[in-house]
Amino acid sequence: MKTMPVMVELCVVPVGVGTSLSDYIAACARVLEESGLEHEMHDYGTNIVGEWDAVFAAIRKCHEVVHAMGAPRIFTTLKIGTEIGRTRQLNEKVASVQRKLAQR
Amino acid sequence: MKTMPVMVELCVVPVGVGTSLSDYIAACARVLEESGLEHEMHDYGTNIVGEWDAVFAAIRKCHEVVHAMGAPRIFTTLKIGTEIGRTRQLNEKVASVQRKLAQR
Amino acid sequence: MKTMPVMVELCVVPVGVGTSLSDYIAACARVLEESGLEHEMHDYGTNIVGEWDAVFAAIRKCHEVVHAMGAPRIFTTLKIGTEIGRTRQLNEKVASVQRKLAQR
Amino acid sequence: MKTMPVMVELCVVPVGVGTSLSDYIAACARVLEESGLEHEMHDYGTNIVGEWDAVFAAIRKCHEVVHAMGAPRIFTTLKIGTEIGRTRQLNEKVASVQRKLAQR
Repeated sequence: MKTMPVMVELCVVPVGVGTSLSDYIAACARVLEESGLEHEMHDYGTNIVGEWDAVFAAIRKCHEVVHAMGAPRIFTTLKIGTEIGRTRQLNEKVASVQRKLAQR
Repeated sequence: MKTMPVMVELCVVPVGVGTSLSDYIAACARVLEESGLEHEMHDYGTNIVGEWDAVFAAIRKCHEVVHAMGAPRIFTTLKIGTEIGRTRQLNEKVASVQRKLAQR
Repeated sequence: MKTMPVMVELCVVPVGVGTSLSDYIAACARVLEESGLEHEMHDYGTNIVGEWDAVFAAIRKCHEVVHAMGAPRIFTTLKIGTEIGRTRQLNEKVASVQRKLAQR
Repeated sequence: MKTMPVMVELCVVPVGVGTSLSDYIAACARVLEESGLEHEMHDYGTNIVGEWDAVFAAIRKCHEVVHAMGAPRIFTTLKIGTEIGRTRQLNEKVASVQRKLAQR
């Protein structure tokens, strides 16, 4: 099967465990850390780059871990970007916009 | 590996092919049809239920097919819902809300 | 101010009220009903068409109502589509894809 | 009308203008800069905090500006978070998760 590099934004919202969600998000951060995938957290999710199958295996693992911590329900949103012949690096898109802003 | 039933909303936006996107969405609909997964299209995506790995294999296939049709870049958004001990059916959540609306 | 017709998908997830969310979603459905905006519910949200300011006033009202029902925290996702010189109707995009599927 | 502080993630995807989108995203960054709202860009959007009406006025302005630059169609995704009795600062959620990670 051909490779498919992907940039994903993952945002996991555990439902049914109250309003303090940071323990669950920290557990997902550990899953990503152990996956070896490049990733960067921000206030509304974590951007991840890597091969499609590795990225989605890590996302499934996040669901397994958060359920194992006791969350009965999980609501996750993803953004997924793929491009023919191009592998995006983290912060590449931000850098490109910032160059445009500086040109002015 | 344990099973993990999931309900997903898939919304694929091909970028760099103009503004008429329905050919690409129709191709994704055929991928889902061939996958045998239960699914239902609406104006902002397609809701899909099934086992995690089968659902995400179909989503990857959608990206492969849309790129093969010539789209250089794809921007996809997903919602993903999992629940411990519960397998959702399509239209179950809508039916539940409509019962509440009728009670009033 | 110029008009700006919009098609939105609204998905409201109350956080901190357990896992049964249909009462809150039903309350949002009543807000939309009272708004007079065209809308259609599906399993992962409600598609709404109308003028930008009217649509976003209704979405703010949904947050006010769900908080007033006791939800301490709300996580909402939106998709927003605007097009120059075109006002989309509900089900128009689905119909367009289905025509493509039938042609084959 | 009561105040409603909000944290939003805005991700604007112009459709029908090719695959290079950074000029359009830079234009949105200028709109946010001029709005005076606190915001922070990442690879998959910009997180914004402020009062509901000011934030959504800025988002509408982004659509107006991107259409005025020639984009015939725009596909935007938003995440919206509101909490009773709490005003989130940018980077507060990330800091909270990082404290959990450090404790271990």
